[in-house]
Amino acid sequence: MPVIDINADLGEGFGVWELGDDLALLDVITSANVACGFHAGDPLIMRRVCAGAVERGVTIGAQVSYRDLAGFGRREMDVAAPELTAEILYQLAALDGIARAEDGRVAYVKPHGALYNRIVRDPVQARAVADAVRAYDPALPILTLPGSAVYKVAEGLTVVAECFADRAYTPEGRLVSRREPGAVVHDPDAVAERAVRMAVAGTVVAVDGAEVPLKARSVCVHGDTPGAVELARAVRAALAGAGVTLESFA
Amino acid sequence: MPVIDINADLGEGFGVWELGDDLALLDVITSANVACGFHAGDPLIMRRVCAGAVERGVTIGAQVSYRDLAGFGRREMDVAAPELTAEILYQLAALDGIARAEDGRVAYVKPHGALYNRIVRDPVQARAVADAVRAYDPALPILTLPGSAVYKVAEGLTVVAECFADRAYTPEGRLVSRREPGAVVHDPDAVAERAVRMAVAGTVVAVDGAEVPLKARSVCVHGDTPGAVELARAVRAALAGAGVTLESFA
Amino acid sequence: MPVIDINADLGEGFGVWELGDDLALLDVITSANVACGFHAGDPLIMRRVCAGAVERGVTIGAQVSYRDLAGFGRREMDVAAPELTAEILYQLAALDGIARAEDGRVAYVKPHGALYNRIVRDPVQARAVADAVRAYDPALPILTLPGSAVYKVAEGLTVVAECFADRAYTPEGRLVSRREPGAVVHDPDAVAERAVRMAVAGTVVAVDGAEVPLKARSVCVHGDTPGAVELARAVRAALAGAGVTLESFA
Amino acid sequence: MPVIDINADLGEGFGVWELGDDLALLDVITSANVACGFHAGDPLIMRRVCAGAVERGVTIGAQVSYRDLAGFGRREMDVAAPELTAEILYQLAALDGIARAEDGRVAYVKPHGALYNRIVRDPVQARAVADAVRAYDPALPILTLPGSAVYKVAEGLTVVAECFADRAYTPEGRLVSRREPGAVVHDPDAVAERAVRMAVAGTVVAVDGAEVPLKARSVCVHGDTPGAVELARAVRAALAGAGVTLESFA
Repeated sequence: MPVIDINADLGEGFGVWELGDDLALLDVITSANVACGFHAGDPLIMRRVCAGAVERGVTIGAQVSYRDLAGFGRREMDVAAPELTAEILYQLAALDGIARAEDGRVAYVKPHGALYNRIVRDPVQARAVADAVRAYDPALPILTLPGSAVYKVAEGLTVVAECFADRAYTPEGRLVSRREPGAVVHDPDAVAERAVRMAVAGTVVAVDGAEVPLKARSVCVHGDTPGAVELARAVRAALAGAGVTLESFA
Repeated sequence: MPVIDINADLGEGFGVWELGDDLALLDVITSANVACGFHAGDPLIMRRVCAGAVERGVTIGAQVSYRDLAGFGRREMDVAAPELTAEILYQLAALDGIARAEDGRVAYVKPHGALYNRIVRDPVQARAVADAVRAYDPALPILTLPGSAVYKVAEGLTVVAECFADRAYTPEGRLVSRREPGAVVHDPDAVAERAVRMAVAGTVVAVDGAEVPLKARSVCVHGDTPGAVELARAVRAALAGAGVTLESFA
Repeated sequence: MPVIDINADLGEGFGVWELGDDLALLDVITSANVACGFHAGDPLIMRRVCAGAVERGVTIGAQVSYRDLAGFGRREMDVAAPELTAEILYQLAALDGIARAEDGRVAYVKPHGALYNRIVRDPVQARAVADAVRAYDPALPILTLPGSAVYKVAEGLTVVAECFADRAYTPEGRLVSRREPGAVVHDPDAVAERAVRMAVAGTVVAVDGAEVPLKARSVCVHGDTPGAVELARAVRAALAGAGVTLESFA
Repeated sequence: MPVIDINADLGEGFGVWELGDDLALLDVITSANVACGFHAGDPLIMRRVCAGAVERGVTIGAQVSYRDLAGFGRREMDVAAPELTAEILYQLAALDGIARAEDGRVAYVKPHGALYNRIVRDPVQARAVADAVRAYDPALPILTLPGSAVYKVAEGLTVVAECFADRAYTPEGRLVSRREPGAVVHDPDAVAERAVRMAVAGTVVAVDGAEVPLKARSVCVHGDTPGAVELARAVRAALAGAGVTLESFA
């Protein structure tokens, strides 16, 4: 029986500003990547999202980031490793404390934005992130891309691969850059079908038409685009309809 | 045998900026109020101070604050109670996670600056702080002034009173406002003598010359003024010389 | 012939976050209160709004604020006068430079949120704001409430009064607190009618039914509520239909 | 008669935190690179430094930076060009407005830290900076390294080269990386002698002993290291003693 997790970014407002429909997404996903205040998310939003996740049995993950509210954590930063480790530790601990106040726990870590992309290829920053997780709780899995540099530096930690149902893949199983045409799949039926294939067959149809292997325990859906909630619902319904068990990895 | 704790504010630099001599003070005090990033302190500084405190057996406290780096947490802010509670929870949890990564724990909470003064008289914000402590760990004491509003709203929590050896007191046992002349005692011998009287006799000589009761389990020394370390050493030496046991309350 | 200005808060997003529909409002108003980065607004947003305002002949004002992104400038802060003056000067100059790069100019100053309310009654902070305006350009009017403390401290400056078409007034011509029921008028026809009465007769129907004088050269419409643009359009259409000339005061 | 300018970074404190001795340096230098609030500097500090510079006839420059208080602007950031242009414009205008309130003017622009280094080699970010200067006031020179990418993208602008008396140079006239041993010259006499050679002969003795040409109109002295003021004084005295005229380039 195939099993997969659906994760999405949540709690990405700040103060008066909102982004995405957290409550609607919480009814669809099995794992919530909750922003921790460095790229988005303030303590009150974090608390509300954790309460909503606990209420629905959704697993809580720490969506840790570079310290960059103005850029939403989307700009690469040359943060020195000891500082990055301390910053990740700070965010992780802050969210976990808030989650515990709502009878939950942080159960995994997913770096956000530019940091997510950076540690796929940079072993120095990847190790800095892994060091923070190890220092806080080595039982927490890190969610990343298949083949990421995180795998090489995460001794003693669990690393979990995720895939993107709405993104095009190369024949090598890598994401097509967003700068290329066709990088994002918009049709909900196509996205749902891709999610099912990923979960059931462990494959994806690449841009050249070839079906290539893509092992992932979680599928990421986006929460901040128009139609995001509908797309997420389509993915969930298709997976359930195909007999896939929806269950967090953590 | 009289017992007292010596507490001081630590980790109050930010990024490239330093404030006070954290390591020197750690050799003098028994409890470190560690800044949590909202008025001062960044994750790397927090980690270094926690490591230094654990190494020396100094108790770690969360010096929580309004979110105000530009004003060093010294400006009163009308933060709504649910937001303030979440912000305190966030800071407390962040520091505790960092402390645990250094084999320590946050053992108490001491609000900083304008928040410290506000909750002495404002039961709404005092309750907001107490709610955060209760939600995180009701075993954590809150350090405040004798007679503070915190006592009235802290059901189920431990509240600990502190005194200031270098501050003048009114005959009613209240601090003389810093705006008044003579509010701060600068002579190290006088400060040390006051500290001993507070610890041994439980009294202070008020501005009118009367000796008035002042029950406190901790004496606060300042860390960010010129001569701060020398003053702190003088206080410690005088207390030890008077046979007072120096021991954290937490 | 009656003349009135319509002003609204613009540019109140930050980074990835949006708030209100700036472009739609620019087609309705005659004066844009542009956020300057302290409560909202980043340099790119400020530049876009200035460009849009210049293109449409809308007057640009500096919507200066306390430094409080997390609280959207809605929390009162005890900022010392010299610091507040410098902060206002900084924001005013920053926006003016950006406006000039788009062939515009800052033509007035409207404090935002908690600072707006504070200086209505606090002459110390009011004077701090006035000092900044005087230091930058004494020709710039300050937009405030009728009867505000700003009038008393603004020697050598121009002070302009504004009114709110969607807010209830007391028989004394003061705003009913938002905490009271009925403080905000939601019906577009009623709001438009009130705006016309303010512009043509210089009066408002107070909560007790009495028609009381309310002299104002500008009417403020809100930009960040659902239906804000429609309401603003209704106000503009009604004013134009009543033969009122719509023209900025600056 | 040789002429040279001495520039240093000033106003790099923030809130309660201080860095360097601004007033002492103002008595030594001819051009002050004043921090604009993005890596350091708050409006009150900016105002004080501008007042001090105007009083002493020291030229004011805008030390613009990435938005990075926590990293003191020392971490490279992938800021998109339109955003970087707007951010530079914002800082430049803010400082200029504050300077004008003190009867001064911003007379040049010197990017700070990681941005300074980035635009030496990255024409995209260099152009973004140049675009901001052009939009604000094309008469303002940009201070950079000889051979910098800024020269290639600054059509219509003035670019001024600076040198560093306390830094080692390669035989090609480039700075030796700070990661290499001997990158920084610490002996005040040697630093002063190098400054004189730069001003009088237009050369520097490179790490291989060769005397290589190094044309620069300004020499930078550091303000935030121990002994910085003494070193700056030694440089100034040696230049004056060698008959060099000390005069800003702007």
